[in-house]
Amino acid sequence: MFKVNENFAKLPGSYLFSAIAKKVDSYQKSHPEESIIRLGIGDVTQPLAPAVTEALHKAVDEMGKAETFHGYAPEQGYDFLRTIISQKDFKERGCLIEPDEIFISDGAKCDSGNTQELFAPDCKIALCDPVYPVYLDSNVMAGRSGNYQEKTGMFDGIIYMPCLESNGFVPDFPKEVPDVIYLCFPNNPTGEAVTKEALQRWVDYANQHGAVIIYDAAYEAYISQPQIPHSIYECEGAKTCAIELRSFSKKAGFTGLRLAYTVVPKELIRGGASLRDMWNRRQCTKYNGAPYIVQKAGEAVYSEAGDAQIREQISYYMRNAKTILDGLKEAGFTAYGGVNSPYIWMKTPDHMTSWEFFDLLLDKAHVVGTPGSGFGPSGEGFFRLTAFGNYENTKEAIDRIKKM
Amino acid sequence: MFKVNENFAKLPGSYLFSAIAKKVDSYQKSHPEESIIRLGIGDVTQPLAPAVTEALHKAVDEMGKAETFHGYAPEQGYDFLRTIISQKDFKERGCLIEPDEIFISDGAKCDSGNTQELFAPDCKIALCDPVYPVYLDSNVMAGRSGNYQEKTGMFDGIIYMPCLESNGFVPDFPKEVPDVIYLCFPNNPTGEAVTKEALQRWVDYANQHGAVIIYDAAYEAYISQPQIPHSIYECEGAKTCAIELRSFSKKAGFTGLRLAYTVVPKELIRGGASLRDMWNRRQCTKYNGAPYIVQKAGEAVYSEAGDAQIREQISYYMRNAKTILDGLKEAGFTAYGGVNSPYIWMKTPDHMTSWEFFDLLLDKAHVVGTPGSGFGPSGEGFFRLTAFGNYENTKEAIDRIKKM
Repeated sequence: MFKVNENFAKLPGSYLFSAIAKKVDSYQKSHPEESIIRLGIGDVTQPLAPAVTEALHKAVDEMGKAETFHGYAPEQGYDFLRTIISQKDFKERGCLIEPDEIFISDGAKCDSGNTQELFAPDCKIALCDPVYPVYLDSNVMAGRSGNYQEKTGMFDGIIYMPCLESNGFVPDFPKEVPDVIYLCFPNNPTGEAVTKEALQRWVDYANQHGAVIIYDAAYEAYISQPQIPHSIYECEGAKTCAIELRSFSKKAGFTGLRLAYTVVPKELIRGGASLRDMWNRRQCTKYNGAPYIVQKAGEAVYSEAGDAQIREQISYYMRNAKTILDGLKEAGFTAYGGVNSPYIWMKTPDHMTSWEFFDLLLDKAHVVGTPGSGFGPSGEGFFRLTAFGNYENTKEAIDRIKKM
Repeated sequence: MFKVNENFAKLPGSYLFSAIAKKVDSYQKSHPEESIIRLGIGDVTQPLAPAVTEALHKAVDEMGKAETFHGYAPEQGYDFLRTIISQKDFKERGCLIEPDEIFISDGAKCDSGNTQELFAPDCKIALCDPVYPVYLDSNVMAGRSGNYQEKTGMFDGIIYMPCLESNGFVPDFPKEVPDVIYLCFPNNPTGEAVTKEALQRWVDYANQHGAVIIYDAAYEAYISQPQIPHSIYECEGAKTCAIELRSFSKKAGFTGLRLAYTVVPKELIRGGASLRDMWNRRQCTKYNGAPYIVQKAGEAVYSEAGDAQIREQISYYMRNAKTILDGLKEAGFTAYGGVNSPYIWMKTPDHMTSWEFFDLLLDKAHVVGTPGSGFGPSGEGFFRLTAFGNYENTKEAIDRIKKM
């Protein structure tokens, strides 16, 4: 008799963004006259850069001719893309990451969810709290947690590392030593970054305890301050303890195109096993490579024209971030982030809960944000706004919030 | 202290097709003058159909403009594609599969590997032997097997269901009742199909025992005989026991474009849990949707022009299949498949092992095929050739084999 994976039933309710979408749909249906501005989900709104669409058109033409047709891609990604990433994203920053340590995929969400397959079932997981929900949910589904406790909003058996105003949103070392440490900087949702010195302490900690860090750097392209590292491999010793996740989604507006990569250094060995070789095996068994045309689009991001266009796009969003951050402060709110990331993390007023503020904002300003508690219990009392809207809408949203 | 998932270490050697690629590369390096013809991996060679490239270009243009830009796709796929699939692939064949039971993905390889996440850790797995290696490998990696036994070529704890000449390559019911039954028809690698009556017996068996069938119909577009079902849902009662995997890779030459879908009917309930809802949760948590441009390309496959072009492509490959099958028979070989599928399953001559014949064929005819034993122990003594080459190469390969 077939039995289902019972860990799925431990997950409370539905996936955060689906829950928000449903709430907004229902509000829109009962208020068809209101124009809702969505600063909730972290989806981009600017079109693909001209260098990118040009590369796509060219690659599509190649796919239409027998002589230049491309079938199955290498599971690890095409060499042309792995090589340019190795050079531009790492070697030019002094990180010696080789092309064969870079694995191209169709998204950092997949990679975030799939990397846990390399861990033993009883590995102890530590997470920033609040944080992007996929790290937690994928580990719960794989059985690395106990039950969910409604009262605390936490799963038994998971180490929550609070990211609070009091620690500058960078977690302290937990009491119990974890086997796996998920770090996301610049952080989603707090928008706050980690300095190289603070990140070096985490690298040293992981190396000392034989832990593995999953470092999600999906927002590194938004870093504006020089003291903030773009890659964990800027820290000494990171290659023996860290896997890094990167994404083209926010860097180049690829949310609808799907391209990302994961770095697993050859030096990352545990119990005699190479995690790089295990990830290679995982990808060869369960993945069939990112589309050729999308990898060519990714290559175009590193061209001179592509790079300039992408920077312009990022500036556009960061102007939104500044508009939100300054506007909220002017309106008397306390707000963080928005300097090295496209996220603004605001404190809810009058001790409202995150969902109370969500409803208020939707009802009074017709603005959609993301309730902080959806990212973990320490997100309660906070609210995430994103800079990915278009400028006019973003400005309008802030004007409406000011008038509330 | 971090511990790795030790199940990975149970997998012997490397992934089949990577192993072949290495062997061929090494042969080509030492014999640079030989022109090697690859009829090994099941990769297509014909370019994308004009209706498909046209749809891609149009969608790329949409992505280049703010008004028509598409960000994150729904994790389940766009409605336009789910709806046309529901209509064309199912309702027109009398199968009442609704759009919300269809989950678009970037490949049947991913879906093949990921569906096992819905099963309890101790579910008993049954597989056709020989078969596409992903079902087995993904279950081994998830801990649903014992150790690999070099002597038998089998994993402890897995039920192997031999597909032999003696049973027409359709397995008999196993002695021990499995919880999960993987069926792939038309089969990869044997190229043989299952009749509706035989498949109905499997559906009845699964319903009777509360088992779940994972039905891989990736090659259904190649079916030429009317008595062969294209979908398991043509059988009565399949919606309460079967998940079906479909792919655009072979149907429309999308191996390098990446598009597939999985059907999980709402009636598929086990232990009170809806497998459709579980799969939805899995996809919402770990997947971010197939690219908009690729889903538009998939839609074009169902247009009048696209359909005609795709049929022509399939005819082209099936002419290759006939060339191989007839040629092998003329040369005195025993061979199967090639009528309802693009695969030809030949018996090795003189009781050679599959790998011995691989080496012989590479050395004497410079033709690459796939050793049958790579698909399971009952594949020993067989060899797979695929019809996905271009016609001239395929004919040349068969001429060379005839002269051997």
